[in-house]
Amino acid sequence: MKHSHQSRSIPGLSLVLACAMVLGCAPAPGTDAGPEVAATTAVDPLPSWNDGQAKRAILDFVAAVTDPSSPDFVPEPERIATFDNDGNLWSEQPMYFQVFFAMDRVREMADDHPDWKSKQPFKAVIEGDMETLKAAGEHGLVEIIAATHTGMTTAEFQESVRRWVTTARHPTTGRLYTDMVFQPMLEVLDFLRDNGFKTFIVSGGGIDFLRVWAERVYGVPPEQVVGSSVKTEFEMTDAGPVLRRLAEIDFVDDKEGKPVGIDRHIGRRPIAAFGNSDGDLQMLQWTSAGGGRRLGVIIHHTDADREWAYDRGSAVGGLDKALDEAPSWGWLVVDMKDDWKVIYP
Amino acid sequence: MKHSHQSRSIPGLSLVLACAMVLGCAPAPGTDAGPEVAATTAVDPLPSWNDGQAKRAILDFVAAVTDPSSPDFVPEPERIATFDNDGNLWSEQPMYFQVFFAMDRVREMADDHPDWKSKQPFKAVIEGDMETLKAAGEHGLVEIIAATHTGMTTAEFQESVRRWVTTARHPTTGRLYTDMVFQPMLEVLDFLRDNGFKTFIVSGGGIDFLRVWAERVYGVPPEQVVGSSVKTEFEMTDAGPVLRRLAEIDFVDDKEGKPVGIDRHIGRRPIAAFGNSDGDLQMLQWTSAGGGRRLGVIIHHTDADREWAYDRGSAVGGLDKALDEAPSWGWLVVDMKDDWKVIYP
Repeated sequence: MKHSHQSRSIPGLSLVLACAMVLGCAPAPGTDAGPEVAATTAVDPLPSWNDGQAKRAILDFVAAVTDPSSPDFVPEPERIATFDNDGNLWSEQPMYFQVFFAMDRVREMADDHPDWKSKQPFKAVIEGDMETLKAAGEHGLVEIIAATHTGMTTAEFQESVRRWVTTARHPTTGRLYTDMVFQPMLEVLDFLRDNGFKTFIVSGGGIDFLRVWAERVYGVPPEQVVGSSVKTEFEMTDAGPVLRRLAEIDFVDDKEGKPVGIDRHIGRRPIAAFGNSDGDLQMLQWTSAGGGRRLGVIIHHTDADREWAYDRGSAVGGLDKALDEAPSWGWLVVDMKDDWKVIYP
Repeated sequence: MKHSHQSRSIPGLSLVLACAMVLGCAPAPGTDAGPEVAATTAVDPLPSWNDGQAKRAILDFVAAVTDPSSPDFVPEPERIATFDNDGNLWSEQPMYFQVFFAMDRVREMADDHPDWKSKQPFKAVIEGDMETLKAAGEHGLVEIIAATHTGMTTAEFQESVRRWVTTARHPTTGRLYTDMVFQPMLEVLDFLRDNGFKTFIVSGGGIDFLRVWAERVYGVPPEQVVGSSVKTEFEMTDAGPVLRRLAEIDFVDDKEGKPVGIDRHIGRRPIAAFGNSDGDLQMLQWTSAGGGRRLGVIIHHTDADREWAYDRGSAVGGLDKALDEAPSWGWLVVDMKDDWKVIYP
């Protein structure tokens, strides 16, 4: 069970993994629960969670590690909690939202690239021709990611994400993507921080994509975001120094890469980790294998009415091995349908 | 002025740069100032700094960016300050302290490697034969770093650093290395944190070497240390998951690498940066080129009696271009001899 992490010379982040689902595998989207607002009391830090084993397990864990008289007490600096993003903090269907960003950017950039009107896979994106896009496969997606994520300065890329994330809307729900974050998870983030935890995002998605909006939406500052990255290069221009994004993968923060990314960025082992797919398996293993009390959580997408229902065999967010290993590691499996009063804010 | 950062397949961190100074360039070490304790008043956050332009510039900068009514006000989350380590927070003569660690480790590990008694460059380290070590050059140093820094798990490496840093002593001062940190800089770190800054170390040295003791000595937690690194690999063993340190460079956090490392780890541009050598030039440029008020500081080693005096042409901590560029960028050049009442705690 060894896995080596080498740089690859294709510029696709872990989004190459998303290829299959650019290509047509779109389960029926859920509809939002609407104004079903949870009864908030002053003492309940998790008002959007139904009373039950899942909510109790989270509350118990936090009580145990923060009580100085508890044998499970953990000093504040070591209270590190890590959260996957796609499917864990926001939805990920019918495909990873960063792929929607890339495709929207192709259409936005098309005026400056007249050749794209006749050049695949760009032509297919512009025309919404999903069949041709599907035929272009992973190689096509890599070309789309390269064109939209590399070549520019870091400041230019951030600006393109900022514009998109404040205006673009999900094709089936019609919501801003940042309105498709999970209200119960926002409460967990706040609850942990209120109890002296530092919360980190550890995502297979692009680190620089997430950082633009993670602070505003999740309360997680840029320095606490870990993700996949391309290499950048320092360059002194006439207008001053810039960092340029190169068409070369720096790091893929997925699967065996997650403990590596955690070690590289955080330098401590988390005591709590939240994920939803096999991409989070090794992060959960790494977290739970530490000494002392640990919390490993799997968000199980079980709610086809309010969100999406999927697990084994799903092209996006497939959950198979991690579900099998959950009992032996003692991971909490959250049932979105039963455990959450609301999905979106 | 473009510089590309690619992975290299030699396992030497930026310590390969230290080669020259393993090899004999040892200026006379300074002696400590001893019990010359500064008169501390309740209102002076920098008691070890002499009154003068340098101290005033630091106080003025912090006052300006933290005063909500100031045009230079910076919100707390954006108050990022970065500090080089070697020669900026602790001494770096007659060679980088991490090289002493590597050589001490060779001697410590020698019993488990009987072949080293007859194999260069290890034989030279064990026998203290600096002439032969010098002849082994950069290649020799890389072999020493590889043997002492890679192959083991991250936990094993941390333990070896922990043992060394709490027991090993500097060859000329006889002090623990962590007692050769600069008291005036410890005060700056505290002063900035007391004013809502997040303080980061951005070092050419090894990130995992620093993290073991940076929190205890500098108050900088592991997640706020940026440095050079080797690749690591997730591995599931019978005893559970481990991260193994590979003999392959991941990142060199020096010169043009410093803004890259800052962007990768922090994701925001610092508003204050402290360095002492040309290795910090690009970090200072990147910091000062940001909009709004910025503080760039160069610690100039001018005190041959209490520490060491060196700048242009020094094999360790050479300061040449950054000193030339200081006036045009408005960087503060701190004269250790005149500006600091004491050097070490």
